[in-house]
Amino acid sequence: MERLIKDREIGYLDPDIWDLLWAFFKRGKSFTYSSCSGRITVIDADYPWSRRGSAVVFKNHLGITEEDLTGVLSKGALHRLWLVVQGPILHVYTKDMGEAWEILRIARLAGFKHSGIMTVNSKGVLVELRTGIKLTHLLKGEETEDPEVRPLVKLANEVLTRGKEKMEMLRIQVESSVRNDPVKLGQNPKG
Amino acid sequence: MERLIKDREIGYLDPDIWDLLWAFFKRGKSFTYSSCSGRITVIDADYPWSRRGSAVVFKNHLGITEEDLTGVLSKGALHRLWLVVQGPILHVYTKDMGEAWEILRIARLAGFKHSGIMTVNSKGVLVELRTGIKLTHLLKGEETEDPEVRPLVKLANEVLTRGKEKMEMLRIQVESSVRNDPVKLGQNPKG
Repeated sequence: MERLIKDREIGYLDPDIWDLLWAFFKRGKSFTYSSCSGRITVIDADYPWSRRGSAVVFKNHLGITEEDLTGVLSKGALHRLWLVVQGPILHVYTKDMGEAWEILRIARLAGFKHSGIMTVNSKGVLVELRTGIKLTHLLKGEETEDPEVRPLVKLANEVLTRGKEKMEMLRIQVESSVRNDPVKLGQNPKG
Repeated sequence: MERLIKDREIGYLDPDIWDLLWAFFKRGKSFTYSSCSGRITVIDADYPWSRRGSAVVFKNHLGITEEDLTGVLSKGALHRLWLVVQGPILHVYTKDMGEAWEILRIARLAGFKHSGIMTVNSKGVLVELRTGIKLTHLLKGEETEDPEVRPLVKLANEVLTRGKEKMEMLRIQVESSVRNDPVKLGQNPKG
């Protein structure tokens, strides 16, 4: 929790993810690690998933404007230009496998269908929570003309919004799981 | 194994996935379930990940031609038209958690970075193996002009090939894990 509060102060956290992360901490057996509320990027790379030689030429967690996209397109590209919209991705460490399965169950209730247990290490059991929300649109290739900016900006912001909605659904499910946890109630019968 | 052989006879299996699936069976503690070698689809839907009201208007595991794409575009769409290229996705059931972690380790060696343990049920521990390879390109929206077919067909086939390469890397890693498994060697000291 101290790390999370410090991260917020420094500005490491995505601007709109605090409530969701805090909800996980309230469960007692879970804490979050590097997580993303969803974002729009423009990437200069051979492929949207490439790391080597790639560059992020635009990044925003709250939206993109026509001016943003026009500006990016005017600068050209070394490889291809990709418009990438990524839904929320959460990394949650749990104290044990039982809590990991419970986090997976809660996440699927909120529509985080592409979620799974990734590894176990000294921090705990690492669970990754993902939706199917993703856009990877070719903006500019070797032989393509410049794209129409207006419909793509509209689409990118719309997809980003779908992701934020899922994030909100996850927050509601996690908070509700804390209130309804019978173990927690048992531990504090007067509460 | 009987199910897999029957699936091949009926034609349920993707044409190019047999060798990889068989390699998993050879490990002894793993078997594969619904798996995909990677494919190109064109989807008529609000979003590429939508199920409700969506329709797959083109699907091929081996590639797409300019004629295919032109044909699909000429028919119009109820919602939006998306060109979706998906890398290979494997579902592997393992006998226990130990084997599940081992499958994850092997998969990551082959570049299947988005892999995780999904659930445990009567069949075993379900592991999903995924690469980051995915293209979701808007072909036709409310306000867009028809796209240039040639560069998109070239790109889709190129992305599909990147996926097939990863599938081959996974096959090599799985087969090599069978040969090098010290437990298996111990069980058959004369072999």
